[in-house]
Amino acid sequence: MVPKLWNETIDAHRHAVREAILDTTWALATEHGLTSVTMSQIAEKTGIGRATLYKYFPDVEAILFAWHERQIAAHLQQLVDIRDEAGDAGRRLDAVLEAYAFIAHERQRHGADLGALLHGGGHTAHAQQHLQGFVRDLLAEAAKAGDVRDDVAPDELAGYCLYALTAAGGLPSKAAVRRLVTVTLAGLRPPR
Amino acid sequence: MVPKLWNETIDAHRHAVREAILDTTWALATEHGLTSVTMSQIAEKTGIGRATLYKYFPDVEAILFAWHERQIAAHLQQLVDIRDEAGDAGRRLDAVLEAYAFIAHERQRHGADLGALLHGGGHTAHAQQHLQGFVRDLLAEAAKAGDVRDDVAPDELAGYCLYALTAAGGLPSKAAVRRLVTVTLAGLRPPR
Repeated sequence: MVPKLWNETIDAHRHAVREAILDTTWALATEHGLTSVTMSQIAEKTGIGRATLYKYFPDVEAILFAWHERQIAAHLQQLVDIRDEAGDAGRRLDAVLEAYAFIAHERQRHGADLGALLHGGGHTAHAQQHLQGFVRDLLAEAAKAGDVRDDVAPDELAGYCLYALTAAGGLPSKAAVRRLVTVTLAGLRPPR
Repeated sequence: MVPKLWNETIDAHRHAVREAILDTTWALATEHGLTSVTMSQIAEKTGIGRATLYKYFPDVEAILFAWHERQIAAHLQQLVDIRDEAGDAGRRLDAVLEAYAFIAHERQRHGADLGALLHGGGHTAHAQQHLQGFVRDLLAEAAKAGDVRDDVAPDELAGYCLYALTAAGGLPSKAAVRRLVTVTLAGLRPPR
């Protein structure tokens, strides 16, 4: 019987190699452009053999999708942490939506071809639903507390927020991102 | 010398053939799916020879891009007409943004693969800028009249509107689209 510790060591090793492949591929893709990255380059720069690399991923696209999934999971965790640190329902909503806008603002630096590949992939549908549900719950809570309008369903308001804040990707400064958040939040307030 | 009337007849004929190619290709793409449409099918269904078709367009993708450009131009004209029919600055803005939301709502029926192709094409950058400028001018006018907040530049507000209203694409009903427009417009109102 293989000892448990040995299995854990193998798992940790495999995880570390996988992480290194993702990091290297992302660095190469942003440095040299998406179309010029090859599996050989990735293997060489990660410090593993090509045959080993192919045991982890079938092609460059699969690696970039895995990188993107990891990135989305990290962003979702970041939003959960921010929610848990903030005070009441209204403040939680404000803090999470501002953080989301800054994530969208950062994302623009990926470059257009990379962005089109990652967001056309269809592998993000589950994460998108998760995000939508997360924001919907925050909105429902804030509506109960009277901070958010209750004449429109939280799910519809979540769609509005997430689309509106995506405009942060095209904004030139952090100040502009904050103004976008202010305007978006104003749309959520109970009608006068 | 070729008489002027003859040239006009040729131009009108070329224009009619081009329009027929666009209509046929769109019908085939929406009926059978994007990837299954061939140049031969398009020629046959348009009632022209394959050689003639290739004098107009090099491939199916080019035809779909041309269709999309025509579609965007028609939508912009529709928004201009709506602006010119509405009353004061505030009502012009409301009417145009509602019409834009309904266009975004209709657009979802294109299907995912067609949508990804058309919007990843880069051929829409000019039209996007035109639309952004059009909405910006409406917002500047409405801000002057006191109907729209003036603490955020009209260009930033235009980005906010256009992104927020794109959420209409995922909405299940016209009533939901109208609620989205209401929420988006609420974000534009002068702060209390």
